[in-house]
Amino acid sequence: MNRIITDICIVGAGPVGLFAVFEAGLLKMRCHVVDALPAVGGQLSEIYPKKPIYDIPGFPEILAGDLIKNLEKQIAPFHPTFTLGERVEHLNKQEDGSFIVSTVDGTEIACKVVVIAGGLGSFEPRKPAIENLEKYEGKGVTYMVRDPEHFRDKRVVLAGGGDSALDWAIYLSGLCKELTLVHRGTTFRGAPESAEKVVTLAEEAQIKLLLKSNVTEVHGEENLEKVTVLIDNATPHEIEADYFIPLFGLVPKLGPLENWGLELEKNAILVNTEDYSTNIPGVYAIGDINTYPGKLKLILCGFHEAALMAQSAYNILNPGKKFVLKYTTVNGIQELQA
Amino acid sequence: MNRIITDICIVGAGPVGLFAVFEAGLLKMRCHVVDALPAVGGQLSEIYPKKPIYDIPGFPEILAGDLIKNLEKQIAPFHPTFTLGERVEHLNKQEDGSFIVSTVDGTEIACKVVVIAGGLGSFEPRKPAIENLEKYEGKGVTYMVRDPEHFRDKRVVLAGGGDSALDWAIYLSGLCKELTLVHRGTTFRGAPESAEKVVTLAEEAQIKLLLKSNVTEVHGEENLEKVTVLIDNATPHEIEADYFIPLFGLVPKLGPLENWGLELEKNAILVNTEDYSTNIPGVYAIGDINTYPGKLKLILCGFHEAALMAQSAYNILNPGKKFVLKYTTVNGIQELQA
Repeated sequence: MNRIITDICIVGAGPVGLFAVFEAGLLKMRCHVVDALPAVGGQLSEIYPKKPIYDIPGFPEILAGDLIKNLEKQIAPFHPTFTLGERVEHLNKQEDGSFIVSTVDGTEIACKVVVIAGGLGSFEPRKPAIENLEKYEGKGVTYMVRDPEHFRDKRVVLAGGGDSALDWAIYLSGLCKELTLVHRGTTFRGAPESAEKVVTLAEEAQIKLLLKSNVTEVHGEENLEKVTVLIDNATPHEIEADYFIPLFGLVPKLGPLENWGLELEKNAILVNTEDYSTNIPGVYAIGDINTYPGKLKLILCGFHEAALMAQSAYNILNPGKKFVLKYTTVNGIQELQA
Repeated sequence: MNRIITDICIVGAGPVGLFAVFEAGLLKMRCHVVDALPAVGGQLSEIYPKKPIYDIPGFPEILAGDLIKNLEKQIAPFHPTFTLGERVEHLNKQEDGSFIVSTVDGTEIACKVVVIAGGLGSFEPRKPAIENLEKYEGKGVTYMVRDPEHFRDKRVVLAGGGDSALDWAIYLSGLCKELTLVHRGTTFRGAPESAEKVVTLAEEAQIKLLLKSNVTEVHGEENLEKVTVLIDNATPHEIEADYFIPLFGLVPKLGPLENWGLELEKNAILVNTEDYSTNIPGVYAIGDINTYPGKLKLILCGFHEAALMAQSAYNILNPGKKFVLKYTTVNGIQELQA
């Protein structure tokens, strides 16, 4: 078991979590940052590192990945420490008012203040509303293709109309014994070239393509045996299947944070705009994961929230001590001890 | 008389006023920016263009002047227009709910929304607490040296211990008939070289230097004739003088904005944190000039305030129309028509 002792535990290493290290550092508070992803940067590193962002103040254009690199450089003088690739699971308040944050892998972070900068939360597959679907999870129903070899010579039904459904239909067509792609529309949201390729494979009878169709039922004794597809929203049609793979994208979920006793509103953590504190004293939520009247899910708003949070956290870590705001133009950056 | 018709009139061309143009532009609203200073950038251009700032998110270090240049580039696609070097004076609400903002020089800006991004307001000289001082303003008492020639062959008393007092003491010493520098301390806050030079000039009897002293009274029939100086906080001493120039620095003042009917708190405009609106519907205040619970006078906070203000202003300019937030990573920047 790893145990880290710090002033502030920041949950989430996206741009807002990283900038929180800076604002805390200006007030001489040390931070440890935890993230389920294996690298810092959150969505910006994971989903769109090469995409330009245009609405970060002072940058007419910056690549998401470069913004993260700049923030890493900006917080370096404050020597943050990191636990990456571990999802936080539990929050335990100690008798003295401090906290232990623990991860699924058993790392424990002891801290006085917890700052949740979890972005849109973790991403989970969007599940279609089909009765008994969860009963077959791991028994024929899966929401992602981890190892395509798993499906070799099997009868597989894919559902979806985006890139993920198209790409896996193309990939698996040469592998499965029988492959059906069920899509509720007549056109695909995915890349046009992929859509064309799928249509060609369907014409060559390598894929069975069912348009204007939905999987409505799943059947089987113990494991999945067949699915019912409603074609043209009218004709039910049974298809024997070893696997049913709905690929309807990912939805953000708060995950284990949902059990921390935080006041939630619309899948986000409700905060006080005075300091972005939650209903649990000592726990703050900043960035896309919080909500309040007027909330905008913009990175620049999270930066502001980090600054106000730090002032409030300072009072918890330094009771009775008065902090006087000093401008960095006047004093520069005082490096914290490593 | 100049008359400008626009969607939003932004009062103040500092970093926050400039970024407000960007946030408004994303929502297809046009802006006209007014500032009393002759150039954009506010304090950053006027007071510390060559100073590095360390707390702008994503910039480990940036010169104040460069931040302004970047912001100018960032807002260029939205073609803002400017009235510079004119101080706003009046705000008039029209019957249809729109506004006319007018400047001291007679420029009128007709707009639906007013955004006050006035920073610390305008700067006015700090006046010492001396009875009847204001009676002699323009009649021997002045708070700045506009044209040194004005003081040639006159008897002048300067007061202060900063750079401004030192620099003018040195400059005027060769010009005045009699020059006295009164300073309450024994050391100077200004540059050490300037302080040394003043001490040398005093030794050479080109300046009369009174330390641990304060000007306590001003006298004269119509114009200033003499001042009373308390030396060592004990001995009153009269000095004949044509001019008394207190140089105690500048203090920020709201100026004419004080008469707009805005709810004020501690020399700042009180706003609602949901959208940074003031008590006058259609008038917003963002950046250092506003106040609310938790307020921090940081540029990055003003950026956030600009974003939330723009969403709210959109509803005034587009009643009944629903705006859906689109990320710049997805849509880029759509240039507005010039």
